[in-house]
Amino acid sequence: MDREAAVALDEQSPVSDRRDLFALPEGIVYLDGNSLGALPRTVPQRLQEVVARQWGEGLISSWNTAGWVDLTRRVGDRIAPLIGVRAGDVHVGDSTTVALFKTFVAASRLRPDRTVLVLEPSTFPTDAYVAAGVARTVGLELRWCDPADPAAALDDDVALLALTHVDFRTGAMYDLESVTSAAHDAGALMHWDLCHSTGAVPVALTAVDADIAVGCTYKYLNGGPGSPAFSWVHPRHQEAWDQPVTGWFGHAAPFDMEKEFIPAKGIARMASGTPPVLALSALDAALDVFDGVPIDVLRAASLSLTDYFIDLVDARLGPRSDAGLELVTPREHARRGSQVSLRHASAYGVVQALIGRGVVGDFRTPDVARFGFAPLYVSHADVYDAVQQLVEVMEREEHLRPAYAVRNAVT
Amino acid sequence: MDREAAVALDEQSPVSDRRDLFALPEGIVYLDGNSLGALPRTVPQRLQEVVARQWGEGLISSWNTAGWVDLTRRVGDRIAPLIGVRAGDVHVGDSTTVALFKTFVAASRLRPDRTVLVLEPSTFPTDAYVAAGVARTVGLELRWCDPADPAAALDDDVALLALTHVDFRTGAMYDLESVTSAAHDAGALMHWDLCHSTGAVPVALTAVDADIAVGCTYKYLNGGPGSPAFSWVHPRHQEAWDQPVTGWFGHAAPFDMEKEFIPAKGIARMASGTPPVLALSALDAALDVFDGVPIDVLRAASLSLTDYFIDLVDARLGPRSDAGLELVTPREHARRGSQVSLRHASAYGVVQALIGRGVVGDFRTPDVARFGFAPLYVSHADVYDAVQQLVEVMEREEHLRPAYAVRNAVT
Repeated sequence: MDREAAVALDEQSPVSDRRDLFALPEGIVYLDGNSLGALPRTVPQRLQEVVARQWGEGLISSWNTAGWVDLTRRVGDRIAPLIGVRAGDVHVGDSTTVALFKTFVAASRLRPDRTVLVLEPSTFPTDAYVAAGVARTVGLELRWCDPADPAAALDDDVALLALTHVDFRTGAMYDLESVTSAAHDAGALMHWDLCHSTGAVPVALTAVDADIAVGCTYKYLNGGPGSPAFSWVHPRHQEAWDQPVTGWFGHAAPFDMEKEFIPAKGIARMASGTPPVLALSALDAALDVFDGVPIDVLRAASLSLTDYFIDLVDARLGPRSDAGLELVTPREHARRGSQVSLRHASAYGVVQALIGRGVVGDFRTPDVARFGFAPLYVSHADVYDAVQQLVEVMEREEHLRPAYAVRNAVT
Repeated sequence: MDREAAVALDEQSPVSDRRDLFALPEGIVYLDGNSLGALPRTVPQRLQEVVARQWGEGLISSWNTAGWVDLTRRVGDRIAPLIGVRAGDVHVGDSTTVALFKTFVAASRLRPDRTVLVLEPSTFPTDAYVAAGVARTVGLELRWCDPADPAAALDDDVALLALTHVDFRTGAMYDLESVTSAAHDAGALMHWDLCHSTGAVPVALTAVDADIAVGCTYKYLNGGPGSPAFSWVHPRHQEAWDQPVTGWFGHAAPFDMEKEFIPAKGIARMASGTPPVLALSALDAALDVFDGVPIDVLRAASLSLTDYFIDLVDARLGPRSDAGLELVTPREHARRGSQVSLRHASAYGVVQALIGRGVVGDFRTPDVARFGFAPLYVSHADVYDAVQQLVEVMEREEHLRPAYAVRNAVT
């Protein structure tokens, strides 16, 4: 439990070579990659290439010569193995919220005889907001399930069960297979929000026979602030897939410019407008860091970090410690994502005091201090240093300082 | 009508200093800025700054310290004067198609007693596709008007008249004021698609009392491939504005993460998901080229270019010439955007032959060769050179070469 042990763990790690692929600032322990992933070093060069050469010199011809027209599909193909699906079945584009709007509406159209969309009340807010927007727009009813037992909310009226795989606040993770199976047993479709999973925990969508998934690319996939979402639809649903935001890039023949909309084959019909080439290019470059890293190795690295963090907090601050910190993330591996959340009455102050000491986690209302462990660039030494700073914050009661009491916008 | 005269016109131009603000490739006459605007020199540096410093070093804190949280509004404020509206009323985000989906649905909700959405059949395809998607989703009826007389299609059932200000194929321009007025006389709302106007022709939305507008930023605004769309809603409609893709960035208090959706005040409720920071930053930098250029100066420069092109084609290839080229863009200034389109039986070959000679226009199915004149970087000398190349293509019948007969994807 000393720093040398942490360094030794890092030296043994099969992903220890990956950290140098990121441009991390000096003197910072970055445990917020579950909010905004760090910058992969390949991204700035790629963007310069895309901007200066493809856009600046190639101009309009780059739609063909630089492959902008199929960039969406190519980036999707690189995400596919991270979520356990076939290349060619992943679309990338739009914000996560817009992608969810499309998939919720289209999914409900696959079950026209059913009228209920089930969500869990602790889902990420945008999922709830967009589900409410969808429900109002297409005449569905929202039903909130018990997060601990989503299957209990299912009946013959349920078109879709939509859950986030890893809870953004607690880091608790659902078992993809059993929940998907329960949805199917009730005749419902299973929709997974993978925002807090992809790139950090294994996601085997095809193996568990899920129906639909949407995920974010600016967290563990390091695509940059506001990078576009991905979406996946099981091949068995693609022919009937009918998303509402029909636009020219989702047309079977965009450049024929026909008046009638004819959807493209397969997942390509998820596209609406012109693809965001700069953002897709940044994401494409960012995905290089995953090349050659099996998902199980990634998962083992993540668990090693979160185990180590939990062990250190237990040992140095005590289980349910005097410090008032309570572990809210499950200890059980099978139920834990790649983050650890601690509850504290002054969680906002704890997070701010840590940031003042160079340890960047984040606060989630009302009382959660959240620490994300991106396995490709967070080290055990980082974990050691973070806990050391946390111990000092609590000992000196820095979290109670008035300067740390006022909340700013955080994301 | 010689090249010296063209150079003299450029020297007299009040925007002649602007061309150096763009990184244009050597040896190219670029007349496709109405499809993809050229690269402003400020963009690469800004992106490097945003990527390397704001993202790489600032990481999550840049949402506050670098102002990412209100980037959408700040960029909107810079577009506002170009479309004649108040700062604070323009939202930037999503693709044009997604923005149109939101505005079409929200507009229809402002007129719940009416059931018809009127479009013109030669509108840009994505407008027609997304209108069809909206109609199917919320139960509206689409009605196609006569492009020459949209008012004739209006009656008490019409909720919304949605027209493109400048036709993408012909370059013909509607009179904003009289058409808006006709829509209002019929009790309908007026929705303008400004994709082919903004940044090249004056748009006085407030003065003509329009209701809603959406536009593209990668054409005359030079925001880069796939840059986000802007949308504007007249202040009188903002309080009741109810767009369907409700998401966390359109919430009154995004970071409180409440379960219930409460829309932000004003145009901010047009936001859905996390804003695309890289693309918005590129666009923000790109807008620098408009600083200090009054819109009337921009318009005069544009008309000088399109007049000159038409005059040269008339003089050197003859009105309705033997070459088989027919001007389809209106000669009347009040009805002309910032492009000139020529009809030709082998228009695709004409465009390809010109590209082979370094003059980049584009082809629009079935028979239109389209030339865009972005007034800040296209010169009269460019126009002269383009027509010279066109004359040589036609004289040598290069447009009939088999190599130029097969169509590729073009945008």
